Amino acid sequence: MEWINKRRILIVGLGLMGGSYAKALKRLGYHVSAIDNNEDSINYAKENEIIDAGAVTCDKELISQADTIIFALYPRLIVEWIKDNQMYFKKGIILTDVTGIKNNIVYEIQDVLREDVEFIAAHPMAGRELSGVRNSDDRIFRDANYIVVPTDKNTEEAIEWCKNLGQILGVKKVSVLSPAEHDRMIAYVSQLTHCIAVALMTCNDDSRLSDYTGDSFRDLTRIARINEDMWTELFFMNKDALLEQMNDFINELSTIRDYIKNEDAANLKAKMRLSTQRRKKFDKTL
Amino acid sequence: MEWINKRRILIVGLGLMGGSYAKALKRLGYHVSAIDNNEDSINYAKENEIIDAGAVTCDKELISQADTIIFALYPRLIVEWIKDNQMYFKKGIILTDVTGIKNNIVYEIQDVLREDVEFIAAHPMAGRELSGVRNSDDRIFRDANYIVVPTDKNTEEAIEWCKNLGQILGVKKVSVLSPAEHDRMIAYVSQLTHCIAVALMTCNDDSRLSDYTGDSFRDLTRIARINEDMWTELFFMNKDALLEQMNDFINELSTIRDYIKNEDAANLKAKMRLSTQRRKKFDKTL
Repeated sequence: MEWINKRRILIVGLGLMGGSYAKALKRLGYHVSAIDNNEDSINYAKENEIIDAGAVTCDKELISQADTIIFALYPRLIVEWIKDNQMYFKKGIILTDVTGIKNNIVYEIQDVLREDVEFIAAHPMAGRELSGVRNSDDRIFRDANYIVVPTDKNTEEAIEWCKNLGQILGVKKVSVLSPAEHDRMIAYVSQLTHCIAVALMTCNDDSRLSDYTGDSFRDLTRIARINEDMWTELFFMNKDALLEQMNDFINELSTIRDYIKNEDAANLKAKMRLSTQRRKKFDKTL
Repeated sequence: MEWINKRRILIVGLGLMGGSYAKALKRLGYHVSAIDNNEDSINYAKENEIIDAGAVTCDKELISQADTIIFALYPRLIVEWIKDNQMYFKKGIILTDVTGIKNNIVYEIQDVLREDVEFIAAHPMAGRELSGVRNSDDRIFRDANYIVVPTDKNTEEAIEWCKNLGQILGVKKVSVLSPAEHDRMIAYVSQLTHCIAVALMTCNDDSRLSDYTGDSFRDLTRIARINEDMWTELFFMNKDALLEQMNDFINELSTIRDYIKNEDAANLKAKMRLSTQRRKKFDKTL
């Protein structure tokens, strides 16, 4: 499938991620429009030429002109939006998303979708501690992993199209995972780490302690500044995979605590050697 | 007390930290000598003019010439070294250290020490993931908190002298804490964070998962490359304070897990708001 400039891309949800997609795609020459119920976001994006056109309501004309629709909405809103607006879709268009969890939404979206259009899920693993279109930045893709998450319902053509989308956004690496594999991975490398950062920041009420902090505490709590609405929704929608990772981690940390309690140097050092070895290998692949 | 150049400083233990002290103090014009049982470290430091003199044994002459001795040894070795060598100390000298735990060593050192010399404990909260004099670097002090840790046995003069030592090393901030306060703080901001990093790196055997990692996983596991001998000793020597922090953290993370399990959005979001608020305040004070 070719990318022809002046194809019209509609972004639904113009926050940090939607705005970053808009900037990247407009720079590449596409016609980019956006729908967001926040009027300030749409006005700001138009004034700053982040988008070519925009609307705060589900504008039939914008929707019916789109060759591609990218959902950068809170996950639970996507299915409803599609149900309400798919009668306006141009025949044969392709849809994708940016959502951080997949199993709980991809099958549902594909189930409600018109037969003649295709939804191929994607997750650009990029972000910032800030939110909103004013903080959007297409450089966030440079170091990102971009995961294409197909199901049995997807065509090879759509999978290739979606991989290509990641490449033109300028990501570091494009991969393909199933929804279940994706969600298990994200539960470990992203959701568990955010839970740990929050717990570390809230487990000790003595705020004077952080006056003395060094690099390690700073590193482990950087992501403790967290958008509570978005992450709560993402955690609940990936509950089973996340609970499994949290339990594994709590068990592992409890084991290490017991080694310390019993002054079991041999086992404690073995864990530290494994940890060092894995992290070294990991540094090499960065 | 004045710092007169060409005062003679002896560093016992010439690893990453001892070497970094040597570089900083020699740059300031002091005569710096070192004792370390690793011949390569001493030779390297002499050849590269990191020290003015050095020995691999407990050289009586070097010891007896010192006006100040700085211990950058593994904690358990300091007391033995003092017992074995204090008969050579010049009358009235001052001693300090760089050790990461205090309660378990400071009182013991002060108990065995000759009456006419004074030990004032200090902890420069600086380091690197690398070790050894070849990786020493006096720029590690720039962003460091430097904690002076006096007991009732210390004189005001020695406390001021030690605060001044931190300042001339070029640290960001000099503070004074009691041994118990220091150890509680370090258990939280440093030892607990290292335990978390190790557990996060070892709790999941699926090494493919880290292929997809983003910034958060990288940040939380940076310190998972760990010197197992040093940290095991530090953990065991601060066992009570560390176990308390580990239990508080495990309980807090288990509470968050239960909120997710029960889809208790109100309580989960309250934790995230507290976490965000604390981290924002913390960012301002950095």
